[in-house]
Amino acid sequence: MATPQIARIGIVTVSDRASRGAYEDRSGPAIREALGAYLKSPWQEVVRLVPDERPRIEETLKLLSDVEGCALVFTTGGTGPSLRDVTPEATAAVCEKLLPGFGERMRAASWDRVPTAILSRSAAGIRGKTLIVNLPGSPQGARECLEAVFPAIPDCLDTLGGPYLEANESVIRVFRPKP
Amino acid sequence: MATPQIARIGIVTVSDRASRGAYEDRSGPAIREALGAYLKSPWQEVVRLVPDERPRIEETLKLLSDVEGCALVFTTGGTGPSLRDVTPEATAAVCEKLLPGFGERMRAASWDRVPTAILSRSAAGIRGKTLIVNLPGSPQGARECLEAVFPAIPDCLDTLGGPYLEANESVIRVFRPKP
Amino acid sequence: MATPQIARIGIVTVSDRASRGAYEDRSGPAIREALGAYLKSPWQEVVRLVPDERPRIEETLKLLSDVEGCALVFTTGGTGPSLRDVTPEATAAVCEKLLPGFGERMRAASWDRVPTAILSRSAAGIRGKTLIVNLPGSPQGARECLEAVFPAIPDCLDTLGGPYLEANESVIRVFRPKP
Repeated sequence: MATPQIARIGIVTVSDRASRGAYEDRSGPAIREALGAYLKSPWQEVVRLVPDERPRIEETLKLLSDVEGCALVFTTGGTGPSLRDVTPEATAAVCEKLLPGFGERMRAASWDRVPTAILSRSAAGIRGKTLIVNLPGSPQGARECLEAVFPAIPDCLDTLGGPYLEANESVIRVFRPKP
Repeated sequence: MATPQIARIGIVTVSDRASRGAYEDRSGPAIREALGAYLKSPWQEVVRLVPDERPRIEETLKLLSDVEGCALVFTTGGTGPSLRDVTPEATAAVCEKLLPGFGERMRAASWDRVPTAILSRSAAGIRGKTLIVNLPGSPQGARECLEAVFPAIPDCLDTLGGPYLEANESVIRVFRPKP
Repeated sequence: MATPQIARIGIVTVSDRASRGAYEDRSGPAIREALGAYLKSPWQEVVRLVPDERPRIEETLKLLSDVEGCALVFTTGGTGPSLRDVTPEATAAVCEKLLPGFGERMRAASWDRVPTAILSRSAAGIRGKTLIVNLPGSPQGARECLEAVFPAIPDCLDTLGGPYLEANESVIRVFRPKP
């Protein structure tokens, strides 16, 4: 049996304050921790921290996809309604395809409890063989949204020819439709 | 009383494999069968089978709308995240207006049971007087999504000046808001 | 304690018939009445009535945002699938950012009861410091959709540096996440 392929997963924190050190990034680590609990198959994080600047975000997403070989990239932050929030625009600009269902699912998963979930403009899309998913900027929001969409991600990576993700089924149930 | 107008309904299967005969199309027939059960008023199918190529899909959608006079066109297939899946892009390119609620409703109708429903990029839109709706590629997915959005379709065709669709109310309940 | 800032709120009825006087506008007043019940802090309406013409709608939205200083603008009408329905397009054209969650939430709030809710193409977005929200054209639809999204609006205006909206908590509960 072949050694399973190590999945490289990018975690990009988008935050003016965190990137200039005015603030400790807690969302990136929250995502890493959640992935650690979810994944049974081997994976490796590729972490970046960038300010809310569209060219910087785009450049980072391209680098993680095209050079670092990440099969999956999560961003956290920059999805709100304010002028500096440009993560969804940067994501759309570097993706060939958008997957509107991710944003819909994330917002709908929270809006009953957190009505301001509708203010999140989180997007997701495909660049080459990489799935890029915007998560909100708060650690709790990022965790909840990751939980809402993660069950569909392994099948998506299969479709893109990426690494086979195996989940700890006692922690989260992933779904692969029968062919 | 005037003879009711016969509704022409396009069913376009988008599939590389089915179009080269490597695979029997089961989704087109599933849609036809569902429509047969739903509709009491007279209708006529206009069936097409095309590969996952954007120009071919666009050309077919234009032909069914502008030349064949379909009031309604369903596509099945080509809505996923892979490189060859381009049905939503082709649909958006030939429509003057998009109706985001169709995709939202279809995804939300399935995601609790089938988490990978968020990977479907199904769109819908209006070209002239024709409503075009993307359904997923699997027979079961196509059937379920059709069931989720069909109740709104007769009213939409009324608004567009199309044929009056009458449903078998014992099979599916359609909705027409009071004027 | 400083006098609270008066929030200026635009209410734009988009309707060919109402704008030529063939029809009494009931949706604009329905929105005004709902806001009157929701808001405890001082506010002032800025009312407009325009036909379903994209340049007129765009011009009006710009005027209310840039000149009249509205922190919030609601439109009612022009969100359906027919040829003359262009309010979402006009809104997208004048906004720097779109907030897809508003349309998603409004449609999902009604579609179980009113399946034709999926035909509404309601959008929302940000122009400068102004939040613009499309509501449907019927008085009842406008009221229901306003109720569905209003809880997130005060926090959105806070983020944009707008006036602090205080709600009558016995009528509607607004939500402000803890910083």
